Amino acid sequence: MASVHNGQVSLGNYLLERLIQVGVKQTFGVPGDFNMPFLDLVEDHPNIGYVGCCNELNAGYAADGYARVTGKVGVVITTFGVGELSATNAIAGAHSERVQVVHIVGVPSTTLQAHQAVLHHTLGDAKFDAFLHIAQHITASTATLFHAETAAAEIDQCLATMLLKARPCYITIPTDLVNVKISAKPLETPLKPFVEHPSKEATEAFLVSRIAHAFETAKKPVVLIDACSIRFHVLDTVQKLVEKTGVAFFTSPMGKAALSEGHSNFGGVYIGEISLPSVREAFESADFILAIGTMKSDFNSGAFTWRMPGERTVELHSDHCVFQYGRFEGVTFQTILPLLVEAVAPLKESQKIAVNPFPKVLAAPSGPITQEGLWPLVGTFFKENDVIIGETGTSAFGVLETKMPKGAIFGTQILWGSIGWAGGSTLGAAVAAKESTPPRRTILFMGDGSWQLTIQELSTMARYKVKPIIFLLNNDGYTIERFIHGPNRKYNDIQPWKWTKLLDVFGAPEDAYATHQVKTFEELEKLLDDPGFGSADRIQLVEVFIGKMDAPRALKLQAEATARVNA
Amino acid sequence: MASVHNGQVSLGNYLLERLIQVGVKQTFGVPGDFNMPFLDLVEDHPNIGYVGCCNELNAGYAADGYARVTGKVGVVITTFGVGELSATNAIAGAHSERVQVVHIVGVPSTTLQAHQAVLHHTLGDAKFDAFLHIAQHITASTATLFHAETAAAEIDQCLATMLLKARPCYITIPTDLVNVKISAKPLETPLKPFVEHPSKEATEAFLVSRIAHAFETAKKPVVLIDACSIRFHVLDTVQKLVEKTGVAFFTSPMGKAALSEGHSNFGGVYIGEISLPSVREAFESADFILAIGTMKSDFNSGAFTWRMPGERTVELHSDHCVFQYGRFEGVTFQTILPLLVEAVAPLKESQKIAVNPFPKVLAAPSGPITQEGLWPLVGTFFKENDVIIGETGTSAFGVLETKMPKGAIFGTQILWGSIGWAGGSTLGAAVAAKESTPPRRTILFMGDGSWQLTIQELSTMARYKVKPIIFLLNNDGYTIERFIHGPNRKYNDIQPWKWTKLLDVFGAPEDAYATHQVKTFEELEKLLDDPGFGSADRIQLVEVFIGKMDAPRALKLQAEATARVNA
Repeated sequence: MASVHNGQVSLGNYLLERLIQVGVKQTFGVPGDFNMPFLDLVEDHPNIGYVGCCNELNAGYAADGYARVTGKVGVVITTFGVGELSATNAIAGAHSERVQVVHIVGVPSTTLQAHQAVLHHTLGDAKFDAFLHIAQHITASTATLFHAETAAAEIDQCLATMLLKARPCYITIPTDLVNVKISAKPLETPLKPFVEHPSKEATEAFLVSRIAHAFETAKKPVVLIDACSIRFHVLDTVQKLVEKTGVAFFTSPMGKAALSEGHSNFGGVYIGEISLPSVREAFESADFILAIGTMKSDFNSGAFTWRMPGERTVELHSDHCVFQYGRFEGVTFQTILPLLVEAVAPLKESQKIAVNPFPKVLAAPSGPITQEGLWPLVGTFFKENDVIIGETGTSAFGVLETKMPKGAIFGTQILWGSIGWAGGSTLGAAVAAKESTPPRRTILFMGDGSWQLTIQELSTMARYKVKPIIFLLNNDGYTIERFIHGPNRKYNDIQPWKWTKLLDVFGAPEDAYATHQVKTFEELEKLLDDPGFGSADRIQLVEVFIGKMDAPRALKLQAEATARVNA
Repeated sequence: MASVHNGQVSLGNYLLERLIQVGVKQTFGVPGDFNMPFLDLVEDHPNIGYVGCCNELNAGYAADGYARVTGKVGVVITTFGVGELSATNAIAGAHSERVQVVHIVGVPSTTLQAHQAVLHHTLGDAKFDAFLHIAQHITASTATLFHAETAAAEIDQCLATMLLKARPCYITIPTDLVNVKISAKPLETPLKPFVEHPSKEATEAFLVSRIAHAFETAKKPVVLIDACSIRFHVLDTVQKLVEKTGVAFFTSPMGKAALSEGHSNFGGVYIGEISLPSVREAFESADFILAIGTMKSDFNSGAFTWRMPGERTVELHSDHCVFQYGRFEGVTFQTILPLLVEAVAPLKESQKIAVNPFPKVLAAPSGPITQEGLWPLVGTFFKENDVIIGETGTSAFGVLETKMPKGAIFGTQILWGSIGWAGGSTLGAAVAAKESTPPRRTILFMGDGSWQLTIQELSTMARYKVKPIIFLLNNDGYTIERFIHGPNRKYNDIQPWKWTKLLDVFGAPEDAYATHQVKTFEELEKLLDDPGFGSADRIQLVEVFIGKMDAPRALKLQAEATARVNA
């Protein structure tokens, strides 16, 4: 470990070494009075990097996007009070969507804290714990380092809980502790991301045999894969289950692209009543459902219309399972799934469901671009291992019905749904995509209303020379909101921008970017067919003009449901 | 009241009528799934407006700026979870700096809340109170409306507490309650911004006589005016005290421009050891200090070097007073000050202190622009009643030594110090400045690093046709941070932007804006002398090129002190 000398390491570097151990290569942040000593260590460390963002919310989003693409951990570094609170929404989103983000906050020295000095960046009341209390509501664990003696143990506990829960954690470092030397010994023991429960062995064996029996005796079993399967890294085992049994698998919106959508057993994205009719029909023909890592939120379940009756459904989760209404606490899919792969027999042909996962592709669409024609068309542009980000709005809903290529990583915020997220997240995703061998392409779909929230991170993309392909859907305002409420309200309008000039203004050199404007399918198709465009050798922004009141099928149905329940 | 019919008013309009009563003419926000029914009411109300911002943090800052300029109340409207949390930093800043901001959050219907539905914009855990708990740490009062019967009383209590404490408040409205009709009767009774304590009359009389005696028998008394005098509207009385007695008055940085800086009794901005030597000398020659509304934070007090010994200082506050170490709880400057004006006699000539409030103006500076020459020069450009905003960084420190014109309103965040604040705040300030009769000019000083955090609100300024004069200090990164730590660190660098092209990209019509670049004093002076420029008839952005390692005198001293205490 680069920063360990004679068995000693500075407290700041201890934290960095732990982060490197869990797969972190890049961090995101904004400097401030109280985090600069820690940033010195990041800047000087040979094995970890730092991406300076334009603001902390965006840096938090970037850490989230980085974690989604690496499948590991994102890191955002902010300063006390002003910096950390700006990232609140990003951290809450990672908490909600179960993304592992470490929020590191540089805070005043232990002396200033002990003296309760009324410093700048405080609430003026000499209380130093208000921001901790805020963080506790949106993280799995917190560590407010104050004593060098216990700091390593606190860091380890905090990070391990993050890994165990797949939720963010929060660590504060006082300026005077950053360079204090502590023992590097604990670094020799890796952090444990998962707790085994040996006492549960009998329960597990019982449950596995019951599930296997139910699976084998079902007329038509299916598997539903959702977000937690991705977050808790059980997809390899799920893949084995699918291969061994030949069972049809579906994903939720949040589980989209968990396994290859080109697989012959892929049944489509199941969203209850909002599903494509052919997908819904196939899924609901099942009499037994193995649901893995489900998150039953409104937008993930078609406004709670998933048809999964308790007597015919098994739910496998990271901390419990449910079988025929019975809850098995502490029995996890990490232990159950490998046992199940062993126990279960291949399906008979009669048990298999015919699948039809995608909408009929329109024959050569032409004329002005429509949502209906757009999404199947961009699907033809995707390549293996692409990172594809869909912003909340028409993009997230539209791309749900686009076929994801093998190895693709799909990022969206179906549960948290914070507009603007994809702008920052794509920065982090693109930084992570560059780390892959070979590098992945990063492709973003985002509406004009949303991009306005976080647009400055386009500048950071240019600064750090990442090369996403950005489809900016210009539909003249908050179209998703127009469908939910107030289609003609002024509050759903935005200021029109000259989008294709932004990269120049944000300092991208002329040969480092390209911009395009497309209004018709012919123009779009020509662009997508251009190998230079597809090579993603520079940052590219495509302004796609599309109708103000045009939306993907799924969004229209979801918006109707949302408007109904709001009333 | 426009929305009252037959003694009834909808709950949403009840809140709007209360806001109008306390002086609100414009609100700021971003639409979201759960606040649109309320935004309908705002959009339809004849007496209150809505400014759609690019994101919620900026909208919060705008509400803060609006409140500072009107001296009344700012309003920010966000949506549940994603929207409200993005505004956290802005609300905390208003709390810290004692600015009255109402944060109105549109939340899911009472039915959905009661059913604990796992909705989008939740943490996925069916708990609907996490965001309330967060808000409680950064507001004076909260009201989570749930029952129409008690809603009016809860709104009144929440707003009255905000007025009493001069801190923000937080109100959530479920979508299904917005249009429920309630009695308009309570609207006939105005909210009370201030609680009188009749039981304290004897204490007050005693204290006033002691203060008056100390004042009259002092060799050299002075008055120090700080932020809470502005926030709690006692300046008229302070002015009377100054006029009647002829006492020299000083302000803190946060109290700057509280009274006219052209007044012959004005002693300057007192910042302890960081003061201009002539100001420090004058202030510290006093043997009696009447300190009104002080906020003893590090940046407001020259890193706690105010020289105000307890035995020679009286502190008057909004909720207590301190006289010779003794604390008088519940005795407020609102009651004490008018009595003191009555009680105190004019000073004798021998009691008066000679004042010398401003630095020597450099004789006709020339060549490249420097911080030392810049601030006195821009002082010559200011006019009566200007609104002047200084962003945290070189701007806030530099403008401290610039003479403010009569009637000027000066806005900065000395205590909270969140970079980016001034971008959003200037939007709100400019909207408020337009409401004045005659309209005020709004002038912003902001560094390039700071503007990158919140730049999209420049677009909103263009959209709503406000016409601030923006001095963008381009010093190639976070100069204030370079002075505190890491002058040559990469983390203090930023991406260079083409600042003068932004207004075009953000959709400002060609005849609605102007941009300028100045590198020398000659260029700047020519611009400042141009009556067209000074007329502020369009939005104007002046890119001022200035040295990367150049800073105002006060900032250099403050940064040294900050670096020292961080270590």
